[in-house]
Amino acid sequence: MKKAKVAIFGASGYSGEELVKRLAQHPLVELSCLTSRQYAGQKASEVFGWIGRRSSLANLQFTEPDLPSLGSLGIEFAFLALPHGVASEFAVPLLEQRIKVLDLSADFRVKDPEVYKYFYKHEHPAPALLQKSVYGLPEAYREQIRGAQLVACPGCYPTSILVPLLPVIRAKMIRLSSIVANSLSGVSGAGRKADPDLLFVECNESARPYGLPSHRHLSEIEQELANAAAEPVVIQFAPHLIPLNRGILTTIHADPVTELSAESLEEVYETAYGSEGFIRLLGSARYPDLKNVAGTNRLEMAWRVDPRTGRVILMSAVDNLVKGAAGQAIQCFNLMNNWDEAVGLGM
Amino acid sequence: MKKAKVAIFGASGYSGEELVKRLAQHPLVELSCLTSRQYAGQKASEVFGWIGRRSSLANLQFTEPDLPSLGSLGIEFAFLALPHGVASEFAVPLLEQRIKVLDLSADFRVKDPEVYKYFYKHEHPAPALLQKSVYGLPEAYREQIRGAQLVACPGCYPTSILVPLLPVIRAKMIRLSSIVANSLSGVSGAGRKADPDLLFVECNESARPYGLPSHRHLSEIEQELANAAAEPVVIQFAPHLIPLNRGILTTIHADPVTELSAESLEEVYETAYGSEGFIRLLGSARYPDLKNVAGTNRLEMAWRVDPRTGRVILMSAVDNLVKGAAGQAIQCFNLMNNWDEAVGLGM
Amino acid sequence: MKKAKVAIFGASGYSGEELVKRLAQHPLVELSCLTSRQYAGQKASEVFGWIGRRSSLANLQFTEPDLPSLGSLGIEFAFLALPHGVASEFAVPLLEQRIKVLDLSADFRVKDPEVYKYFYKHEHPAPALLQKSVYGLPEAYREQIRGAQLVACPGCYPTSILVPLLPVIRAKMIRLSSIVANSLSGVSGAGRKADPDLLFVECNESARPYGLPSHRHLSEIEQELANAAAEPVVIQFAPHLIPLNRGILTTIHADPVTELSAESLEEVYETAYGSEGFIRLLGSARYPDLKNVAGTNRLEMAWRVDPRTGRVILMSAVDNLVKGAAGQAIQCFNLMNNWDEAVGLGM
Amino acid sequence: MKKAKVAIFGASGYSGEELVKRLAQHPLVELSCLTSRQYAGQKASEVFGWIGRRSSLANLQFTEPDLPSLGSLGIEFAFLALPHGVASEFAVPLLEQRIKVLDLSADFRVKDPEVYKYFYKHEHPAPALLQKSVYGLPEAYREQIRGAQLVACPGCYPTSILVPLLPVIRAKMIRLSSIVANSLSGVSGAGRKADPDLLFVECNESARPYGLPSHRHLSEIEQELANAAAEPVVIQFAPHLIPLNRGILTTIHADPVTELSAESLEEVYETAYGSEGFIRLLGSARYPDLKNVAGTNRLEMAWRVDPRTGRVILMSAVDNLVKGAAGQAIQCFNLMNNWDEAVGLGM
Repeated sequence: MKKAKVAIFGASGYSGEELVKRLAQHPLVELSCLTSRQYAGQKASEVFGWIGRRSSLANLQFTEPDLPSLGSLGIEFAFLALPHGVASEFAVPLLEQRIKVLDLSADFRVKDPEVYKYFYKHEHPAPALLQKSVYGLPEAYREQIRGAQLVACPGCYPTSILVPLLPVIRAKMIRLSSIVANSLSGVSGAGRKADPDLLFVECNESARPYGLPSHRHLSEIEQELANAAAEPVVIQFAPHLIPLNRGILTTIHADPVTELSAESLEEVYETAYGSEGFIRLLGSARYPDLKNVAGTNRLEMAWRVDPRTGRVILMSAVDNLVKGAAGQAIQCFNLMNNWDEAVGLGM
Repeated sequence: MKKAKVAIFGASGYSGEELVKRLAQHPLVELSCLTSRQYAGQKASEVFGWIGRRSSLANLQFTEPDLPSLGSLGIEFAFLALPHGVASEFAVPLLEQRIKVLDLSADFRVKDPEVYKYFYKHEHPAPALLQKSVYGLPEAYREQIRGAQLVACPGCYPTSILVPLLPVIRAKMIRLSSIVANSLSGVSGAGRKADPDLLFVECNESARPYGLPSHRHLSEIEQELANAAAEPVVIQFAPHLIPLNRGILTTIHADPVTELSAESLEEVYETAYGSEGFIRLLGSARYPDLKNVAGTNRLEMAWRVDPRTGRVILMSAVDNLVKGAAGQAIQCFNLMNNWDEAVGLGM
Repeated sequence: MKKAKVAIFGASGYSGEELVKRLAQHPLVELSCLTSRQYAGQKASEVFGWIGRRSSLANLQFTEPDLPSLGSLGIEFAFLALPHGVASEFAVPLLEQRIKVLDLSADFRVKDPEVYKYFYKHEHPAPALLQKSVYGLPEAYREQIRGAQLVACPGCYPTSILVPLLPVIRAKMIRLSSIVANSLSGVSGAGRKADPDLLFVECNESARPYGLPSHRHLSEIEQELANAAAEPVVIQFAPHLIPLNRGILTTIHADPVTELSAESLEEVYETAYGSEGFIRLLGSARYPDLKNVAGTNRLEMAWRVDPRTGRVILMSAVDNLVKGAAGQAIQCFNLMNNWDEAVGLGM
Repeated sequence: MKKAKVAIFGASGYSGEELVKRLAQHPLVELSCLTSRQYAGQKASEVFGWIGRRSSLANLQFTEPDLPSLGSLGIEFAFLALPHGVASEFAVPLLEQRIKVLDLSADFRVKDPEVYKYFYKHEHPAPALLQKSVYGLPEAYREQIRGAQLVACPGCYPTSILVPLLPVIRAKMIRLSSIVANSLSGVSGAGRKADPDLLFVECNESARPYGLPSHRHLSEIEQELANAAAEPVVIQFAPHLIPLNRGILTTIHADPVTELSAESLEEVYETAYGSEGFIRLLGSARYPDLKNVAGTNRLEMAWRVDPRTGRVILMSAVDNLVKGAAGQAIQCFNLMNNWDEAVGLGM
């Protein structure tokens, strides 16, 4: 098969680095361009300690994100691992050059510019593109992703929350106003920034809630839940920072509409995800564990029905940099190329 | 002041070790006896690496838990850091010898033997004592503790959940059926047992829920909430294991009975805890953090009212081995002696 | 190419699990048999949380290590991830059945049964095989490994020490009696055993030397250094346990025979390893870091000449479960099959 | 006893914070002034999460380091927890105001300005003071510290290296040119600075050497070893960063002058440190462990004689922020006041 020519913008952050690592090993990718303002002019192998001498990356340099030169490189796909707000500056001209865009930022996830403004505190910079973008959760939008020019890859928290909730919401099994989601995030979720609160000594032997009660990821979570419910949804969401590198662990509580059993949940999830390659259903006896998904593109999930309260408890685990970012983007990219969506994504 | 003669039963577990460390430095304690079946005959300084040569503990030996000999030692107080089920075997004869007992196990926390049986899966071994015991949460039962013969010290999860909830329940501010508590526990909470699931490699870079949906601590949590509410309470509780040594971080969500403000919560908590030495109120702008309470007998807590959902969010942090176990027991012990309850408990 | 039929003995320890993970993805391997006394009868996917439902491993069961049945399976290669002493019990009958053996234990690394006895405190169980085995360090014994029936894969510490030392010893650049090696090991190096000293709480926020001064790995280290020097070598070796999952970081100090420069070391290492795919030379300005080799089959190394003392300082980093165990064994296995030695070993 | 009025300069770094925490609980200290350029004007309780509402610190504010106002406060002692180079700017005027100074920086540790220049790469800013300062290692300079106006508190690495080496060097038991010291440091040793290399994700699951071969601490280490040896000493020193918060673990190798036994080392160390309250001698069977000294002012040490090489192996552990910084400074401060040197330093 013909290889696709790919550029990664913002390749030196944690998500960018994960994209580099995985696309470099993708058998159908020609990695042609890595941009990084911070490291422009340096070899990737000087910045990333894991690049060996005979790696295909050994001689690739970081460049300034210079759009005109991309045309001459023949780039077909651009992955944007840029801060939100910055990503849209690049997406517009890239799309004009007919380069397909996989955006890992939050810029094109929310369809309603008012919702965007409420959560992100500024006007959306390119509202016209919002209707064109496809939300890059293959388990929900596989067919739309295949034909997309612009994929807005979901955030890490949203992935861990939407995958367990969408099937039970579509099946109208839970009361929408009762949803409470608690999530634990590894520190790489905060990005590679020199913030004193992210120093080893400040995070090690520490755990803390943050971003309460209106974390920005609520905008895309509630949009997608509302799509599934065909009515507005407002949920409770509490993120926490815990001392490990990678992973999002989410525990969701919700009231059932009518009494539910673990078996009925099993049936719903088997129907929804029984043939999904990257969803692992653990049922009602086992628990998800971040160490089992670290470094993989898998989401694993389990469920319980509490016999004392009747509530449904849903639990999920993902690697925030893989199924929560770079891996999911590559899964979308494979779909856009009509390849097996697991190519280059390991087990 | 006259020193109190003290014995610690089960002194080699994590809670026992914390008791040893703190009681050895308590200015009004004569630590006369440490029992440990596993280490009987060994010096404490051989088992605990932190005991210096000129420590008052340098020559203390672990002994078999031999009750008759305690009488001859003139022991006045016994701290029981034993597994549940075992503690009651010792509590009965100790009380008969008129030795006051501070039990860190779950044996005497629950008043109703049927509730005990439901959660602990066996008959209560000494139901007659259940009515005599006082639940050792000084912020709730200070006066009763002063006069108690038998104090049942609360578990670590219950401490982190009850302190934030009791005032708002007494004030009838929240809907009882709506309470959802999520807790994160450091690994010392699981005790010093050679369980493969507690190995460094299995816990490091791991986070996982466990014990869902009917963790045993619910028995005492719901009993105490019911006392405060003057009606039965059933809550949702989800414990998780996270990779750090010490601490319980709890986030609670609940619906208000009528619309609430952060100010009204501030008022309730200032009234309830404004003069409590070991409760730190962080208000509605800051967050609790386990690193700030590690090694201390403090509980710190914060709150929010979510403007989108109206829900109340309560957050708390304690060191599970101190305010969640040994420190709280010493706070009770100080009360039983009519001493300043902070003696020997540091800042 | 025809796939090789492979069995893994002792597949449930950390090295065994790493073999399972990597051989399951090896394009030229048919993984036919996993033995584990502890888990016999259970599916691999129940024991290892990372095995997905559509993995090739999904239906593989652990079995008792029953040698006769292996013949009927047509096994061609057996990887032994068994405790030392146990491995040789299996190696003998496997070799008699003309099954090639890659042993990850220490049983066949040392050629001299007296040296084995000195360090392992018992007679060698199969001394006749010692002369047949090939020491499985491809960077030193590539040709011999190709033709071997029995490969004794090196330990993790030896790999990290031998790779930096062999070239400078062969070049007679350092005084043999002056070698001091300090190594730091992640906790997985101690194996998956329910030892209280390996509990999370005992290892986290801890670092400690152990096994001083006569760690068993000295037997193979000194044997291989002596081969390179063509005279006996006795070195100083200090292992330490540090709180991370994976990796061996080694720092070696040695006196030069005559004054040395960083450039002369560069030349020696470029000559020795310039075409080695799994050795990364960092030169005299950068430092190895365990995070850069975790999960890879690479050893990275750096060197310095101290202008004040004249001493040579060599530093290396490997993942103890990959280049220090399972990865290196697969590298040898690829050689025994005359395949590219990097097949199935990633970047 | 009359309390001493104390100021802490640079109170917001890790060593400064440790000083604040411990001096606030010191029964003979009145903590009158905390300076911090970064936090001037803020309450200490807003910056340090561990300060409770009824702590003596609750209302103390950080101020700009304004020297004239100190006079009016009646400060008697100033602890400087400032970067090297900055400390001397303050020490000079403080001493002129007859305020005694305990400097935790490197500014006054080295007696020879040329040595200072070689290691710190600039001229010493106040060479006249170098002869006045006393090196603040009580186990070596107790009497001089009692009468000092200016105490230069040792670095963390030097403390861990000098305590084990001084007795055997004074006793002329080891060959001076043969000393090789390897040290492992927790991340707080690097200070509270927003350096990307110190982020949680960069340090967790990482271990790496750094600062080779001429770490600045060699200047004071070799000076003090030379004093003990009465001749120049040059040693080999390799520091490493490991993923934990607190602690320095050092392992030293050296050739004996004549054959040595563990018993002869025992005798030397018992003589040197048998009555030292903060040195714990572990002998030749146990190992130091950072978790046993964390949060304490103790150094623990062990030794071996290698029967195969004859070499002496010395191992030590300290908490870098306590016995390696703030605790040791307070020990010196107690001596300067002719108090028991353990006041305020716990067990």
